[in-house]
Amino acid sequence: MNGHEQVIGSYRTQGGELLVGGVPLARLTQRVGTTPYFAYDRGRLLERVSRVRGALPPSVQLSYAVKANPFVPVVQALAQVVDRFDVASGRELRTALDTTVPASRVSFAGPGKSRQELAQAVAAGATIELESRGEAVRVAETGNALGIRPRVAVRVNPDFVVKGSGMRMGGGAQQFGVDAEAVPDLLRWLGEADVDLLGFHVFAGSQNLSAEVLADAQRRTVDLVVELAADCVDPVRYVNLGGGFGIPYFEKDSPLDLEAVGAGLAAAVDRLGRALPEAQPVIELGRYLVGEAGVYVTRVIDRKESRGQVFLVVDGGLHHQLAASGNFGQVIRRNYPLAIGNRMGEAPTEPTNVVGKSCTPLDLLGDRLDLPLATEGDLVVVFQAGAYGLTASPTAFLSHPEAVEVLVGDAPAKETS
Amino acid sequence: MNGHEQVIGSYRTQGGELLVGGVPLARLTQRVGTTPYFAYDRGRLLERVSRVRGALPPSVQLSYAVKANPFVPVVQALAQVVDRFDVASGRELRTALDTTVPASRVSFAGPGKSRQELAQAVAAGATIELESRGEAVRVAETGNALGIRPRVAVRVNPDFVVKGSGMRMGGGAQQFGVDAEAVPDLLRWLGEADVDLLGFHVFAGSQNLSAEVLADAQRRTVDLVVELAADCVDPVRYVNLGGGFGIPYFEKDSPLDLEAVGAGLAAAVDRLGRALPEAQPVIELGRYLVGEAGVYVTRVIDRKESRGQVFLVVDGGLHHQLAASGNFGQVIRRNYPLAIGNRMGEAPTEPTNVVGKSCTPLDLLGDRLDLPLATEGDLVVVFQAGAYGLTASPTAFLSHPEAVEVLVGDAPAKETS
Repeated sequence: MNGHEQVIGSYRTQGGELLVGGVPLARLTQRVGTTPYFAYDRGRLLERVSRVRGALPPSVQLSYAVKANPFVPVVQALAQVVDRFDVASGRELRTALDTTVPASRVSFAGPGKSRQELAQAVAAGATIELESRGEAVRVAETGNALGIRPRVAVRVNPDFVVKGSGMRMGGGAQQFGVDAEAVPDLLRWLGEADVDLLGFHVFAGSQNLSAEVLADAQRRTVDLVVELAADCVDPVRYVNLGGGFGIPYFEKDSPLDLEAVGAGLAAAVDRLGRALPEAQPVIELGRYLVGEAGVYVTRVIDRKESRGQVFLVVDGGLHHQLAASGNFGQVIRRNYPLAIGNRMGEAPTEPTNVVGKSCTPLDLLGDRLDLPLATEGDLVVVFQAGAYGLTASPTAFLSHPEAVEVLVGDAPAKETS
Repeated sequence: MNGHEQVIGSYRTQGGELLVGGVPLARLTQRVGTTPYFAYDRGRLLERVSRVRGALPPSVQLSYAVKANPFVPVVQALAQVVDRFDVASGRELRTALDTTVPASRVSFAGPGKSRQELAQAVAAGATIELESRGEAVRVAETGNALGIRPRVAVRVNPDFVVKGSGMRMGGGAQQFGVDAEAVPDLLRWLGEADVDLLGFHVFAGSQNLSAEVLADAQRRTVDLVVELAADCVDPVRYVNLGGGFGIPYFEKDSPLDLEAVGAGLAAAVDRLGRALPEAQPVIELGRYLVGEAGVYVTRVIDRKESRGQVFLVVDGGLHHQLAASGNFGQVIRRNYPLAIGNRMGEAPTEPTNVVGKSCTPLDLLGDRLDLPLATEGDLVVVFQAGAYGLTASPTAFLSHPEAVEVLVGDAPAKETS
């Protein structure tokens, strides 16, 4: 099985229909009331968190990076099962604070925090991950102005590079974090300032499918943090080891070996615990928790043929799911897994292009996929749409209607009276 | 002068500040009340329309493709000076109908029109540019249901390819239009249906900077239309020759030679007039009318150095102006023209990276540009932001604040009493 077959095969079907959250697709579409829509499957979300918990050392806290999917019901559901949230903006901070996760377990990272956002975070008591000396100064000023001692950590731009990441965010010259070699000087400055320095955050890259590379990054991150801790006045209480766990999008991708990641992490955390016994290790995951729990569903408006090729034109497209069109960070366009959700199990009959409704050749969701014959009214499902989907897409493009989002599926069975 | 210097040099400055719509940038920013924002310059818009009018043969009608910038004040301003609008969605249709341009001069193109959108267009009396046989059937059904005779044109996928376009949208297998060789059969079907067939639309590509290539496309388009017209029962009254006029974005780009385009078009239109005397030729422009009239203004939040490189972190980024980050349709990222708008004329001091506030390496607005030394509070201006800016960007990315849009500048002086 290639990567796409594995992803699609992980869904159950019933009478030729995909089941999402246990609901057959046509019925779900009726219930949603419109197409296109994103459906997030509660069961898949919770199962993923359980699997991560099972594989990671028990001492590690799990943080959800809200930016991957800030849909409020998703964030509320995850609040029940993760330890912490990481936010990337003032609005995400409000979303996190609306849950039962305490502000003391919310971290705020990002190179361009405004003074307003810093004030929000200081007032909330969230942990601000400092991205520069200038930001440290602004945070201290904000704390003085508000009469509240800011909780901070230093985000470190490591002096090593993690290879094989979808996006490299550490090593070399970066807008993210403080260069490792400049951290001791910043720590001295923070020691004089009226802030509560909790620890460090090192985030080296994202969307990595190699357990070996991730384990290597975690090991080197621990080494780096232990070295930097020597310049801290107070004990280090917080070590955010980042995340970067990838999910398979393309035919040739294989899923991450989570157990191998867990084993590597156990060794790193063990070392950390011996060196810095008060340090709470944290793994921060966004895409890995939600990415595979979501599908994008869009309806076929037209089936046409042009010079020997078949085109299905759908009522959605890149304005809702830009990444699947290959136009968000990809150099070479490759297909995301895609199926005709009401014709599951039907034999492929023809290479088919699936295109969005927008008047641009960029709006390509499927390039010559082997699909069963589909016509007007059929439902196209794009998989792996739970992270960086709707919020990473130009929703106002050509003034098309917005997509709806829903969270579907029961909570796992509980003992009830 | 390279392409960037030409673009930036086309703006006046005053006391080191860029003038937009005649207003110094700091004052404009105060008036807008927030950053980031898009400012569209009414004078530049109107001047561009005048220049196009002056270069094009007088018999050609000018249509504005609303999708390039649907900001209502821009559409309302253009309604005073163009002949027609082209829309790409039901919402754009409403925007067009809110102006004084009559519905009979509004065309609706796009491969994925929904039945609801078709009903809107039929009810309005707009011209539906048919993209497929299936759509022709749906339009006829809609007309019957509403008791209104639909006004239609056939969008033709030509049998030639226009080279040198930023995006090719004609030739080969396409989701756009009806293959030229299939048009005669469709015309026979339309001849029996209860629709008013006005003519043809051929759109071969966009963002083309070569007058020669554009002239060649127009000549071949006229040839094709004249050939296809032989199968029409009624006289052809509408020939939309497309547009595709490009604007310079990159250092090595040179502006389109508009006069040469006009000369080529005059020959083509002359041929058209002799063959099909009742045919109204139309040129449809989006980006070319508005793209150079807009700037994106964002404020520096932080200036930091990392391993020998300078980074300005701004309060905007790819969530407002994705194209400038290189992530919308570009294969190789190249810089858009960019300046520190309150330090115009200051000597460049250092190669500078300008990055957005989002926590991703994709959020790069300027890669090692030569800029004067800038610090917190300075205003970064990204030029050529008038088309496919805000509406082509993932505005919900990381839940950052939205950008504001304004139209600034006086109308040209009129005789007043």
